[in-house]
Amino acid sequence: MIACLFDGREVRVDRNHPEPEAPPGEVRVAVRLAGVCRTDLEIARGYMGFKGVLGHEFVGTALEGRLKDRRVVGDINCVCGQCDMCRRGLPTHCRRRTTLGIDGRDGAFAERLALPEANLVPVPDKVPDRAAVFAEPLAAAIQITRQVDLAPEQHIVILGDGRLGQLVARVFRARGLSPTVVGKSPGKMDLVRRLGLEAVAADDALPDKAADVVVEATGTADGLATALWLVRPRGTIALKSTVADTAGLNLAPLVVDEVTVVGSRCGPMDAAVAMLAQGDLALEPLVTAEYPLTEADAAIRVAGDPEAIKVLIRS
Amino acid sequence: MIACLFDGREVRVDRNHPEPEAPPGEVRVAVRLAGVCRTDLEIARGYMGFKGVLGHEFVGTALEGRLKDRRVVGDINCVCGQCDMCRRGLPTHCRRRTTLGIDGRDGAFAERLALPEANLVPVPDKVPDRAAVFAEPLAAAIQITRQVDLAPEQHIVILGDGRLGQLVARVFRARGLSPTVVGKSPGKMDLVRRLGLEAVAADDALPDKAADVVVEATGTADGLATALWLVRPRGTIALKSTVADTAGLNLAPLVVDEVTVVGSRCGPMDAAVAMLAQGDLALEPLVTAEYPLTEADAAIRVAGDPEAIKVLIRS
Repeated sequence: MIACLFDGREVRVDRNHPEPEAPPGEVRVAVRLAGVCRTDLEIARGYMGFKGVLGHEFVGTALEGRLKDRRVVGDINCVCGQCDMCRRGLPTHCRRRTTLGIDGRDGAFAERLALPEANLVPVPDKVPDRAAVFAEPLAAAIQITRQVDLAPEQHIVILGDGRLGQLVARVFRARGLSPTVVGKSPGKMDLVRRLGLEAVAADDALPDKAADVVVEATGTADGLATALWLVRPRGTIALKSTVADTAGLNLAPLVVDEVTVVGSRCGPMDAAVAMLAQGDLALEPLVTAEYPLTEADAAIRVAGDPEAIKVLIRS
Repeated sequence: MIACLFDGREVRVDRNHPEPEAPPGEVRVAVRLAGVCRTDLEIARGYMGFKGVLGHEFVGTALEGRLKDRRVVGDINCVCGQCDMCRRGLPTHCRRRTTLGIDGRDGAFAERLALPEANLVPVPDKVPDRAAVFAEPLAAAIQITRQVDLAPEQHIVILGDGRLGQLVARVFRARGLSPTVVGKSPGKMDLVRRLGLEAVAADDALPDKAADVVVEATGTADGLATALWLVRPRGTIALKSTVADTAGLNLAPLVVDEVTVVGSRCGPMDAAVAMLAQGDLALEPLVTAEYPLTEADAAIRVAGDPEAIKVLIRS
């Protein structure tokens, strides 16, 4: 089959890639549409130690099992069900997990992939592929609302107008919240304003120590420092960027102001599909381009452009 | 009066220091005994930008007001009562606060100090000076129990066997918890074991990603990295060290493991006095030495010794 992989050196399209195997409990899925995420770009730069088929955001058609022939999305964490984290009800933190297209498991930039049947969530007919493909990052945005107490009267700041920041803004709006999005791109900030939300440029002076909640979704090393500048004493920062380099970061305000920082990663796929089914998320303007799988390497390059939001790959 | 101050260049004892003034709402306190804290050492190194009389841990005798002639300890945060933080019920985060011996207000290494009367908490007769002087850092240890959900069945690790780590261990023991203390000094770890708690050397291999709660009380830049290594996915780190230099710190595990980091600073003085009144905290072994106020500069030097725990200054 055709697949786009990172071989440890470069991203390339392989036209003779082996079909995925589906051991007991797993099913194969014919990928329909996949999305490029910042994590894919980091893998492509060799930052994550992963080799194999890229991609973890997808909508496809189940080829077997109880959801055979139905459109599905899937939880990317494949878990053991046995370890202390699984038993504790925290399967996304399974000690022995593999992760689709990220860690120990071939991903979604391919004609077909395999996942545990339990990971699949069916997609209602009324949700088009170009919305369903957002389920995984949408779940990651929803996750914040499960970790942090949020209320309409709060002053909430979302740092970042990119892929994730846009989705967090949409989820928060759907929950009746009124976040302010801090962005860098005039075009992306305009998308936020079209939602009826406030968007301000990162260069503009924002009041320091005033925000009740700051969602850090910049994807950069500076994000946490900015969040610490904006958050009020006893406020909360939801941290989304997996930043390995924190040179120059001053964490003293975290202690002095008794701030809470909550790391936030994957979220509930079923809740994401339910939100997609309600519509009204204005996802279509987030699609920068759609490429065929045979040009997945070009799609990944385009996704690295600062003005790109979501680049899709059609299998 | 006699006072020990940092003049921006060095620590010195001034035998002709002006008496503190007590504006309306404040009362003067004759200091009986004061304790040296790591913050004092940082100020003495010029790290905090404070000039004036050092010291914020004290027990003294109120010279006026409703507690006249009674022994008192005092909350070190002097607040406006008007700002949004005060109105929100977070006076320790008052936007216009001064802090005894730390920020904008002369401290306790002196014959007399002044504090708002509302800050003073009377000390029961049965609590000796050498216990009451621990009220402020004890409150800081108690604060953790108000910010983090703690339970006896949890695997709790306290990083640091110094001043604060020892007090956190005592507070946790008093709450029926069984923390493991990670230390560096054989003598200090022995003090922990005498409480009936486990103490292990920092060099020993501890299981990674296993602790439900890690209290970071090392006072060093490495503490948070170690805490991130020890804490389990979805676990909690209580961060006590105000570290401005985080070079080389990898915060990716915070996001990937969805860890919560809670910054923790000052605590409730009334709760600290209540705990002191119950006794049984084994504080006396924590006293390394007691110096007269005229030798406060020597006391501060001794407190900087790695084997020192609490050095006291008698006014």
